[in-house]
Amino acid sequence: MSRNADAILLVEDNPDDAELTKLALARHGLDGRVTHVSDGMQALDYLHRRNGFTNRSGSNPMLVLLDLKMPLLDGIGVLREIKGSDNLHHIPVVVLTSSTEPSDLLRAYDAGTNAYIAKPTEFSQFLSAMKHVCEFWININQTAPQLPSAGVRTTGFGDLM
Amino acid sequence: MSRNADAILLVEDNPDDAELTKLALARHGLDGRVTHVSDGMQALDYLHRRNGFTNRSGSNPMLVLLDLKMPLLDGIGVLREIKGSDNLHHIPVVVLTSSTEPSDLLRAYDAGTNAYIAKPTEFSQFLSAMKHVCEFWININQTAPQLPSAGVRTTGFGDLM
Repeated sequence: MSRNADAILLVEDNPDDAELTKLALARHGLDGRVTHVSDGMQALDYLHRRNGFTNRSGSNPMLVLLDLKMPLLDGIGVLREIKGSDNLHHIPVVVLTSSTEPSDLLRAYDAGTNAYIAKPTEFSQFLSAMKHVCEFWININQTAPQLPSAGVRTTGFGDLM
Repeated sequence: MSRNADAILLVEDNPDDAELTKLALARHGLDGRVTHVSDGMQALDYLHRRNGFTNRSGSNPMLVLLDLKMPLLDGIGVLREIKGSDNLHHIPVVVLTSSTEPSDLLRAYDAGTNAYIAKPTEFSQFLSAMKHVCEFWININQTAPQLPSAGVRTTGFGDLM
């Protein structure tokens, strides 16, 4: 299983929520292994290694934690792009949102999300949820091997696999 | 979130492995909430409520734990049927297998699995993995609301939602 530097790509437009999530993930062993981007377009740029991310190192993240409501391109749009892409569709995506609307759940699963978390509002419950995310998605789940066509340069990256 | 009687559908052809998995899940609060079927055709019969399962009660399971190597219809075939079905594709599926073959990982993710677990051979590690499965997939993950077209009878089931 890949244990690359960028274990999680966090896609969240609210800076306070992003800091809180990074703090929670850091408490569960992911300090320095979370990349944060603040809208859907940046998330796709990161994953496709384009615009500001042409030189990012490492393989694909082991998990994308994805907010739904965001500017420029929302979470459903990001999900559709990831799950419709030959290069990206194997990457696990977990929606992390304050919404418990049945329509959001249906749209997220229709667009191919791997799982869906409604953010607990109470901090200790949020910490606990992030602990379980790390334990399952980083420590237990096996990600698919990354295909050469995914644009990973095959030399010079000691942190690949 | 649904907390129906059948939280997990376990699809496993090896009786010893099935007993071990049920034992591990029972230790984490799912005693009596796991239905076991022993091949892929039975899994689809259960999910589609046909043949021996026309009268099963409750809504869809919150998780399908799916072996890959099985008689009659293997796990990849079951995954393709679930993820290609208008009525079933929202149901989370986690592959639970002894295989760590890259080709099996790729085929499972290509067929739409939500996650993939390579069974630890050491019992305490297996127990721990099942604990994390329960914590994430039963306690944290939000399942999509079940659509009326999924064939659930809407009266007479106190355990729905």
